[in-house]
Amino acid sequence: MAHIDLDDGLPGLRALLDFRPETAGPLGALAETLLRGPGPLERGERELIAAYVSELNGCRFCSSSHSACAAAQLPGGMALVRHVHADPDGAPISAKLRTLLAIAAAVQRGGREVAAEHVDAARAAGATDVEIHDTVLIAAAFCMFNRYVDGLATYAPSDPAAYARIAERLVAEGYANLR
Amino acid sequence: MAHIDLDDGLPGLRALLDFRPETAGPLGALAETLLRGPGPLERGERELIAAYVSELNGCRFCSSSHSACAAAQLPGGMALVRHVHADPDGAPISAKLRTLLAIAAAVQRGGREVAAEHVDAARAAGATDVEIHDTVLIAAAFCMFNRYVDGLATYAPSDPAAYARIAERLVAEGYANLR
Repeated sequence: MAHIDLDDGLPGLRALLDFRPETAGPLGALAETLLRGPGPLERGERELIAAYVSELNGCRFCSSSHSACAAAQLPGGMALVRHVHADPDGAPISAKLRTLLAIAAAVQRGGREVAAEHVDAARAAGATDVEIHDTVLIAAAFCMFNRYVDGLATYAPSDPAAYARIAERLVAEGYANLR
Repeated sequence: MAHIDLDDGLPGLRALLDFRPETAGPLGALAETLLRGPGPLERGERELIAAYVSELNGCRFCSSSHSACAAAQLPGGMALVRHVHADPDGAPISAKLRTLLAIAAAVQRGGREVAAEHVDAARAAGATDVEIHDTVLIAAAFCMFNRYVDGLATYAPSDPAAYARIAERLVAEGYANLR
């Protein structure tokens, strides 16, 4: 049961956006800009970073929904996403994306965990400053969304089909009007 | 030196908002809504929660600037803010605010660290669902802002007077047009 009086028919973040419409607007705009707005990283790559950080934070709702969004937009599908969660160093992704995931993992541990070596490795693999910036901000933002969703003990469906449906809507319609 | 090519004349978050205007809009709107928009917690209390979480995350720029904003808007001033950082259980604040700071500290550790006991204690001290919600979201948002600012190694002034000037502007003008 959630820690506050939410509409229990709504899962995860959606229940919170419904509870407090004042903050729903900026949060939806942030997710839309980060995950789908103009930028050098592909949408599937951005969703993968979001899913990876959510998995590291143990946030079932966010990890499951963004894993499904990543799977829908990456050629490797859910098998690739699961491989990244289990073994990011061994998964068949580009060297650049691998170094960006390492930056995201450092951000998940704490801002000061990101070392010059992480950034140098990303740059050596071809990452631009904007790609490094966007990776840090996506990872940081999911340290917020994960804490928001779990800190208020929102409902997380257990059926994978529920997340496939959530992803289908998010991939088609985006995050700006999630409520 | 910052990890990416920022305007080194700008401190902390401001350099990042300048670097990536696309994300600056939603981030400014989020900070404005959380810290100054309509809500049951006083602005000084909200800044204190933001400063407290930033201090726990060891983010000098955010802790110093939001401590200065809290000090400017709380009767106890900077002495009270310093007391809260050093000893939240002993600081002369209301029982309700003390339980909300305990919730914020749990969120800082991780979303699933918030227990029913934290929420029950806040409710017993008179906190409403909206106050509990806003506390969780402010704490979660500063787990983002702190990681963003430190994850890209932005410049943090060492002179306390610099933060007093930052706070003076934020208290007067808000966060919506920070760039």
